Amino acid sequence: MKVAALGGGVGAGRFLRGLARLVPGDDLTVIVNVGDDVRVHGLHVSPDPDSVVYWLGDAFDRERGWGRRGDTFRATEELRAFGAPDAWFSLGDLDLATHLFRTTGLADGVPLSEVTRRIAARFGVGARILPVTDDPLTTRIACRDRATGDRLDLHFQEYWVRRGGVDPVLSIRYEHAERSRPAPGVLEALAAADAIVVCPSNPAVSIGPILAVPGVREALVARRERVVGISGIVGGAPVAGMADRLLPALGVEVSAVGVAAHYREFLAAWVIDERDRDLAPAIERMGVRVGVLDTIMRDDERAEAVARAALALLG
Amino acid sequence: MKVAALGGGVGAGRFLRGLARLVPGDDLTVIVNVGDDVRVHGLHVSPDPDSVVYWLGDAFDRERGWGRRGDTFRATEELRAFGAPDAWFSLGDLDLATHLFRTTGLADGVPLSEVTRRIAARFGVGARILPVTDDPLTTRIACRDRATGDRLDLHFQEYWVRRGGVDPVLSIRYEHAERSRPAPGVLEALAAADAIVVCPSNPAVSIGPILAVPGVREALVARRERVVGISGIVGGAPVAGMADRLLPALGVEVSAVGVAAHYREFLAAWVIDERDRDLAPAIERMGVRVGVLDTIMRDDERAEAVARAALALLG
Repeated sequence: MKVAALGGGVGAGRFLRGLARLVPGDDLTVIVNVGDDVRVHGLHVSPDPDSVVYWLGDAFDRERGWGRRGDTFRATEELRAFGAPDAWFSLGDLDLATHLFRTTGLADGVPLSEVTRRIAARFGVGARILPVTDDPLTTRIACRDRATGDRLDLHFQEYWVRRGGVDPVLSIRYEHAERSRPAPGVLEALAAADAIVVCPSNPAVSIGPILAVPGVREALVARRERVVGISGIVGGAPVAGMADRLLPALGVEVSAVGVAAHYREFLAAWVIDERDRDLAPAIERMGVRVGVLDTIMRDDERAEAVARAALALLG
Repeated sequence: MKVAALGGGVGAGRFLRGLARLVPGDDLTVIVNVGDDVRVHGLHVSPDPDSVVYWLGDAFDRERGWGRRGDTFRATEELRAFGAPDAWFSLGDLDLATHLFRTTGLADGVPLSEVTRRIAARFGVGARILPVTDDPLTTRIACRDRATGDRLDLHFQEYWVRRGGVDPVLSIRYEHAERSRPAPGVLEALAAADAIVVCPSNPAVSIGPILAVPGVREALVARRERVVGISGIVGGAPVAGMADRLLPALGVEVSAVGVAAHYREFLAAWVIDERDRDLAPAIERMGVRVGVLDTIMRDDERAEAVARAALALLG
């Protein structure tokens, strides 16, 4: 059974630990958001592809919620002592190796997708990890400075990491998306998959940039009957992250129903948490099958159960 | 009293600890070799300027003989796990911050001399640390592969760090030197100095590249009466480093006399170790005054004594 998953960040990583148990090796392709990618100290940092690799390679720091387990921050602390302009973005010392390896590869003309493949191989990840595009694509947040009321136009990382996500969001855009092309293998994986899984990732800044790459949304719509998603919104709030602050800017209600409606064009089935059981009828009225279970993935066993339920919904 | 010193590497750093005690603050200008500069993982690494800054900022690892005291090598070990092509060149995690700061500065168009000034400021170094040039200048070693006999043309770091300095040396050249210009302040410091001190650094790969920058040798010759050097060769062998393997390629005898003869065009006075006392007459016959004392700089006190003797020789 071949599965293609779309995702990025913690919600995806946690879930993919379970999915990879059911779909071993390169029968699983993960198409990952690159809208968060950012240059830090001149290095190309790919937070979502790295998170997915670190999760699947069992190198992720689950307690910290980002970066590599057992990492230290000596270089970053030093860069703060230098007054380096990018020192607000912490990079672990082990993590730096990933960014140096990626940046030198890109400088040598190796595409991001191939560099990512090499990084995944170093961590022993059997699944194919594909950045959605090898081209530039940046999520930008227009917001109001909470203190001054000034309009700001920020890289997603500036909005979230530097400023703590406190500024009221006006709109979200996926810069350069219209000119980007799917990375080699992305459309092929979507066409060949027996199941396409939308991970419980942030619809605005993890799934949104993936769908903004021309051809990807169309591929999902064309294969709607094989698409299942897992709601990352439980009880009206995101299990992790800042989706509650971003979804309203897209006109999406912060609920398992709201996100299903946002995805309905390509969604055949939707997994929601048992606490949202009462929302099932509203989702089913959209023509979307619903699975209900405990979706809080405390460990890999729970993640596997959620993945099994999602695949089962496709019949 | 204003002093300009020429040097690079361990011999210079050790000595400059003493000289800076006698010539505090920015009355001391150190003109530093950049022929060892090398790109590692895409980063601009300046071994000699960093060594001088770390020595004067009391951050140098005296036991290891390079890099920062208390450094760790987690990122470099990770890069080895990636199979990164430059992983033969170890960069400490703290040291990486210096290289990231330098590389981003250069990418933003800041000249190497200004980036170096900022790095020195971060380490509280009062002396002015000037790379001899802001332009590209690379020391290259032509040698025979010890195993195969093939002719090799290597960056100095490949010859020394990667291959361990074991290949018989044929010749040394300072690539791009003829097109380089002295960094802002270099010729001014040489013109204004009450004393010009040639540190006990490797004549072939530390002092040689400095003299190869058009205008620098001429400035020393013009001020010959104010130039004193300290021999880094004691008892026919270098106190540190690989000068013994390189000097023959320049036709220079590996002795305190040989190096004095190599420098005689601009040398008024030469400090040699007491073990080389019998060489004094041969040096004096070249028209060079000689100072004799214990030049092994076990600590800053000995370094200060050597510096005092050197300055005293100029009268």
